[in-house]
Amino acid sequence: MTETKTSQNVSLLLLFILLYCFNPAHQLHPLDPLTPSELDRVRTIVTTSKPNSSFHYVGLDEPDKPTILSWAPTGPSPPRWAFVVTRIGHVTHEIVVDLTNNSIVSDRIHGGQGYPLLTFDEQVAASGLVLKYPPFEAAMRWRQVRIEEVTCGSFTVGWYGQRSTVLTSRRVVKVMCYCFGDTVNLYMRPIEGVTATVDLDEMAIIEFLDRLLIAVPKADGTDYRESVQKPPFGPRLKPISVVQPEGPSFTIDGHSIKWATWDFHLGFDMRAGPIISLASIYDIEKQKSRRVLYKASLSELFVPYMDLTEEWYYRTFFDVGEYGVGLSAVALEPLRDCPKNAKFMDAFVVGQDGRPINYSNTFCIFERFAGDILWRHTEAGIPNRVVREVRSEVSLVVRMVAAVGNYDYIIDWEFKQSGSIVAKVGLTGLLEVRGTNYTHMDQIKEEVYGTLLAENSIGSRHDHFLTYHLDLDVDGVANSFVKNKLVKSKAIGSPRKSYWKVVSKTAKTESEAMINFGSGATELLVINPNKKTKMGNHVGYRLIPGLVAGPLLSTDDYPQIRGAFTEYNIWVTPYNKSEKWAGGSYVDESHGDDTLAIWSKRNRKIENKDIVVWYTLGFHHAPCQEDFPLMPTLSGGFELRPTNFFESNPVLKIKQPDFN
Amino acid sequence: MTETKTSQNVSLLLLFILLYCFNPAHQLHPLDPLTPSELDRVRTIVTTSKPNSSFHYVGLDEPDKPTILSWAPTGPSPPRWAFVVTRIGHVTHEIVVDLTNNSIVSDRIHGGQGYPLLTFDEQVAASGLVLKYPPFEAAMRWRQVRIEEVTCGSFTVGWYGQRSTVLTSRRVVKVMCYCFGDTVNLYMRPIEGVTATVDLDEMAIIEFLDRLLIAVPKADGTDYRESVQKPPFGPRLKPISVVQPEGPSFTIDGHSIKWATWDFHLGFDMRAGPIISLASIYDIEKQKSRRVLYKASLSELFVPYMDLTEEWYYRTFFDVGEYGVGLSAVALEPLRDCPKNAKFMDAFVVGQDGRPINYSNTFCIFERFAGDILWRHTEAGIPNRVVREVRSEVSLVVRMVAAVGNYDYIIDWEFKQSGSIVAKVGLTGLLEVRGTNYTHMDQIKEEVYGTLLAENSIGSRHDHFLTYHLDLDVDGVANSFVKNKLVKSKAIGSPRKSYWKVVSKTAKTESEAMINFGSGATELLVINPNKKTKMGNHVGYRLIPGLVAGPLLSTDDYPQIRGAFTEYNIWVTPYNKSEKWAGGSYVDESHGDDTLAIWSKRNRKIENKDIVVWYTLGFHHAPCQEDFPLMPTLSGGFELRPTNFFESNPVLKIKQPDFN
Repeated sequence: MTETKTSQNVSLLLLFILLYCFNPAHQLHPLDPLTPSELDRVRTIVTTSKPNSSFHYVGLDEPDKPTILSWAPTGPSPPRWAFVVTRIGHVTHEIVVDLTNNSIVSDRIHGGQGYPLLTFDEQVAASGLVLKYPPFEAAMRWRQVRIEEVTCGSFTVGWYGQRSTVLTSRRVVKVMCYCFGDTVNLYMRPIEGVTATVDLDEMAIIEFLDRLLIAVPKADGTDYRESVQKPPFGPRLKPISVVQPEGPSFTIDGHSIKWATWDFHLGFDMRAGPIISLASIYDIEKQKSRRVLYKASLSELFVPYMDLTEEWYYRTFFDVGEYGVGLSAVALEPLRDCPKNAKFMDAFVVGQDGRPINYSNTFCIFERFAGDILWRHTEAGIPNRVVREVRSEVSLVVRMVAAVGNYDYIIDWEFKQSGSIVAKVGLTGLLEVRGTNYTHMDQIKEEVYGTLLAENSIGSRHDHFLTYHLDLDVDGVANSFVKNKLVKSKAIGSPRKSYWKVVSKTAKTESEAMINFGSGATELLVINPNKKTKMGNHVGYRLIPGLVAGPLLSTDDYPQIRGAFTEYNIWVTPYNKSEKWAGGSYVDESHGDDTLAIWSKRNRKIENKDIVVWYTLGFHHAPCQEDFPLMPTLSGGFELRPTNFFESNPVLKIKQPDFN
Repeated sequence: MTETKTSQNVSLLLLFILLYCFNPAHQLHPLDPLTPSELDRVRTIVTTSKPNSSFHYVGLDEPDKPTILSWAPTGPSPPRWAFVVTRIGHVTHEIVVDLTNNSIVSDRIHGGQGYPLLTFDEQVAASGLVLKYPPFEAAMRWRQVRIEEVTCGSFTVGWYGQRSTVLTSRRVVKVMCYCFGDTVNLYMRPIEGVTATVDLDEMAIIEFLDRLLIAVPKADGTDYRESVQKPPFGPRLKPISVVQPEGPSFTIDGHSIKWATWDFHLGFDMRAGPIISLASIYDIEKQKSRRVLYKASLSELFVPYMDLTEEWYYRTFFDVGEYGVGLSAVALEPLRDCPKNAKFMDAFVVGQDGRPINYSNTFCIFERFAGDILWRHTEAGIPNRVVREVRSEVSLVVRMVAAVGNYDYIIDWEFKQSGSIVAKVGLTGLLEVRGTNYTHMDQIKEEVYGTLLAENSIGSRHDHFLTYHLDLDVDGVANSFVKNKLVKSKAIGSPRKSYWKVVSKTAKTESEAMINFGSGATELLVINPNKKTKMGNHVGYRLIPGLVAGPLLSTDDYPQIRGAFTEYNIWVTPYNKSEKWAGGSYVDESHGDDTLAIWSKRNRKIENKDIVVWYTLGFHHAPCQEDFPLMPTLSGGFELRPTNFFESNPVLKIKQPDFN
C-alpha cells in the first residue's frame, strides 16, 4: 500500500464516521432509496477505484425478497448495497457497492448490446456542441434563425438491423434543434431537416445533415404561460379547495405510508420513478394485515412514432430505459399539481459525476375526495319505512410527474378503502411536432404521418405503451394466475336458449398467461391457491383493464423487436429478481435480446408460485388541433380489485368522516 | 253539451286561470319537464275524458327539433304538450294533451305487443295480494317465516316465444318474497322457490308455485346500516370537505345551467331519468357559443341474469322501459351522495292516479375538484431557466341516483372545461341473491349460475347494458359518423418495416356504423362535414369508450331478441323523433319488434344528416364475496371529446381559480 492510498483511506474513514453520525442510516427501511450521504459514499467508493467513471445509474440494490419479507423494524437491518452503472471510456460497468462495509462487491463489464440511461450532462453537452458547430451555425444563418434563440434535444437512435456499423459500435444520439425565440414552447418550433449525430462517449459530432429547408413554425399562439396570455379570456371559476381542518388521515414515516387500512412503502428509482412495495391491507374481521403487492412500478414506456421521414423514422423511444422516468421527475407545484391537502416528499438522483442532486417535491401524497360514492342503497321495499345508507369515497393518491422532454406523464397510484389499488397515468405536455411547409390541409396530397395542427406544424402520430411490473403477493407469496372466461352457452331444457357460464383456467406456464385484450370476455385474477374464504372461494385480486391498445407494428420490425414486451397486454412470469426491465437492462440501441418476450420463451411454470404480472397500458395518439400548442390531459389506468379476498364487503363498517 | 259538462268546463277554466296566475308557465323553457300544476291539469283533462285511467307515464311531449332550435328566450313559447300512457281496462292508451288549449290532441290505442311502465301502486298492491293469499301464508308457516317480516317484489316476466297463452294476453308479473326480519337487507334473504304470478290489470293471482324448500339465508351480517354495526371497526378518517367560500361558479335558472363555458338544459323524465339537452360550449376565440349535443339520455338498461332455474330464467329486466329509471330516482343525501358544495333540484313524477309526486333532491349539481391536472408542462430545455405551468382541473357534475329495486345506479354527466362531456355510471346497492341449501363451495358439484357469497346465498351472474341515446349536433345539425381505423402498414424504402396509418371512412348508411368494440383500433368521430377549422380539418367530437362488454346470449334467444339493441356497442341512426327507446316504446313483455335493431334494418342514409349515436356501455358481473351484503361501487363510462372542434387547446387561457 502506498502512502497516498493510506492517507486517502484515512480520510475516507473519517468521512464515513462523519456521515454515519449525522445520518440515521440504522433506522432505514431496507427498501428506502439511497440517501444523499449514501449516494455520496457510492461516488467516493467508485471514483476511488475508477476515477474516470461517468455515472449513468445509481440505485438501491435491494436485499433478496425473503430477507425483505422476514425483516422486522425492530430487528437488525440487512446490509445496504447500491447498484451502479458507469461508463469508463467505451465500456459499461455494473458495480455493486456494499455500503455497510464501504467496499465494491463486484464490478462486471456489460458485454452485450445496448447502453445505459443517458445522463442530463451529456445531453446538455451534445446540444452545446452542436450549437457551436460551424456547419450548424451556417445552417441557422441560411434559415435566418438567431443562434441565441436555438436549443437542442438528444434523440436516441434505436436500432435498425445494423451488424457492425458506426451506429452499433458507438453510443450515439441524434441532435435536433428548436427555435424558441418569442415563446417558451420550443417543441412547436422545430428546425426541421437539420440533424447532427453525436458520439456521446467521444462527445463529438460524427455526422451532420442539412437535408431540407422547411419553414420554422411561427411563435404566435404557442406560448402557454399564464403571464403572456392575451384576451379574450374565458370565465374564471370561483375559489375552490379541499380542507382537512384536523390534518390528513395518513402518516408518513420515512418512506413508509399508512392510511386507513393500508400500509405500504414508497420508493424512488432514477429509472422507474415511484416504486410501491409491501402494500398490505388490514382485514378488520381477521384482525390482521394481509399483503397484496410485494412491488409495483413502471418497467418500461415505449413511444414509437409513425413518421417514416428521414428525421423521424428512428424515433421509437423507451422513456424508462433510455431517459429515466425517475430522472425526468419534476418538482410538483403545490395547489396546482396537487391539492391543498397534499404532503410532499423529495427524491435524490445523481449527476454524471455521481454527486447526489436533490429533487424537491417529487412526490405528493393526498387524500382524494372527488364527490364519488363508495357505496349506497335506498331501500323502499320494507313497508312504511325508507332506509338510506350512503358512504362517500375518500382515497389516497401518490403522485409523481415525469417530464420526459416534451411529454408530461402524471403517474398516480391510488389506494381505495375497498381494497382496490388503481394505477393511473395522465398524458399532457407538448406534442412532438414536425415542421412542414404546408399551411392548409387542402395542400396535402401525400402521407404526412399526422395532422396539420397549425401552419407549418404536423402533429405526428405515435403510441404510448406503459408496461407495469406488478409483483402481486395475494395473501402470501405463492399465487396462481386464473382466467375466468365468460362463455356463451346453450341453455337446454329451459325457455331460454342461452346464458353465459364461467370457464376457469389456471395458467400453468408463461405461454398460457399471455393475453391480448379485446379477444373475448375474461376476468383475470391472481389468486392464492393455498387460501380460501370460509365459503370456499380462492382468495384473489382481479385485474380490471382500462384503455385497451396493442402495437400496430409488424413483429419483425426493429422497433417492435426491441419493444416486443408490448405484444401482449398481459404476461405472467415466475419471480426472478433480475427481471425488472421489460425492455432489457440496456435499452438504448438495444437489439431486443433481453426483453420480457425473450425471458418468457422459456415458458416457465407459474402455477402456485411467486409470480409477477406485466401489464401494458396503451394509447394510440393521432393528434388533433386541441393538442396544440399544449395537450389537455388524456388519462388511462387499471384497477386491482379484491375478489373473494375478503369474506364480505370490507367497507361495510366504514364510518363516514365528518364534513366541516 | 249537457249542463253537467258545461259546469265542469267552467270549473276547469277557473282552475286553469288560477294555476296560470300562480305558475309562471310563460317563463318555462320549452324542454322543461311538466310542472306539478301541468301534471295536475293533465290528470284533470285525461280523467275528465276517461275517469278510470291508470297513469303509467306522463312526460313532456317536446316540440319538434326545429321549433326548439329556433326558440329564443325572448320570443313566444311553443305550445306545451304532454304525452300520456294510460291503461283503461286491458287497453293501453297513448294520449297527447295540449296544455295550452287544455285539450286532448289525440288518443291512440296501442295495438302492438308489450306493456307500459309498471306503476309503484300496482307493485305494492301485487305484493299485498300475495301476502294475504292463504296458500302463500301456508308456505310461510311451513318455512317458519313470520308473515309480518315478509315483503315482496314484482318481477317482469319477459317473453319466451309464446304465441297466445295466458302470459301473452295478460299483463303479469311474478312476485317473489323476502324475509327481512332482523335486517333491512331483504335482498340477501330470498324465500326461494315460492312464486306467485299476478295479473296486474285484474290485480289477481293467476298462478302460485311452491316448488322448493330452500333455507332462508340468515340475517346475520347482512344489515348495512351504520347504526347497527358492531366492532371491530376500521380506522375513521379525519374530516374532509370541499369549500367554495364565494359559492359555486354555476348558475341554475329553472332547468338551464351555465358553468364555465358550458350551458345546457337539465330535464327529467319518469322513464329516462336525466335528460341533457342543448349543450353548447362558448368558443372564446370565435366569441360564440357552439352546440355539441341536442339531447343525451339513457334510453334503455338491459339486465339479463344467467341463472336457468325455474325462479330465475325469466329475469331479464329492462329497467328504463319496465320500471322507469326516473320513477326509481331516490332523494340524494347532502354531504354523502354529493359533496358539500352541491346544489339540489327536485323532480316530479305521477302516481297511478295521475297526481304529481314531488321527488325532492333528485339531482345534485356540483363542481368536482378531485386533484386532477387539466394540463401541465415543465420545460427544462431552454438554457438557464425552468418553465412550469400547471392548471388544476375543475369540472361540473350532474348526478341522479336510481334505485331500481336492489341495484343503485349512480348516473353522472360531467362537463369539462376542455370541452369533453363524460357519461359515468356507478353500480352499487344490493345483489339479487338466490337462496340455496349449500353452505360451502366444496358441496357444489353442479352449475349454480353464480358464486356462493355466504351460507345459503348464491350471487347470480348477470349483465348490465346501458344504452345511451346521444343526439350530437356538432356545431350544427348535419353531421357524419367517421371511423378512423388505425391500420398496420408496410414501410417501403425505410429502415423501418412498418408503421400505422389512419384510414378514414364515413358511414354512409346505418349498417356501416354498427360497431363492436375490441375488433381493432378505431377512432370514432362525429364530424360536421360542412365545417372545417382554419387548418382544414373537419370539426368533430370523438367518442372514447370505457369498459367494453357485449352480450353473451345467442341472437335467437328471446331475451336477446328483446335486447337486440345491445348487439353492437355503437349504432347510428338518422334523427327520428319517434325513435327514443332502444328497446321499444312498450318493453314489458315485448317481443322485440320495436327495437333499435329493427329500425336500423331500413339501413337509412346517415351521411351529412341529423344523426343519433346509440352507445352501449356494458358490465358482466360475476359476483364475489366483496359484493356481500352490499356492493362497493363499480364504475364505467365514456367520453365525448372535442377533436378538431376548436382551432387549438380551448383551456390554454384558463385562469386558475384561487385556493383558499
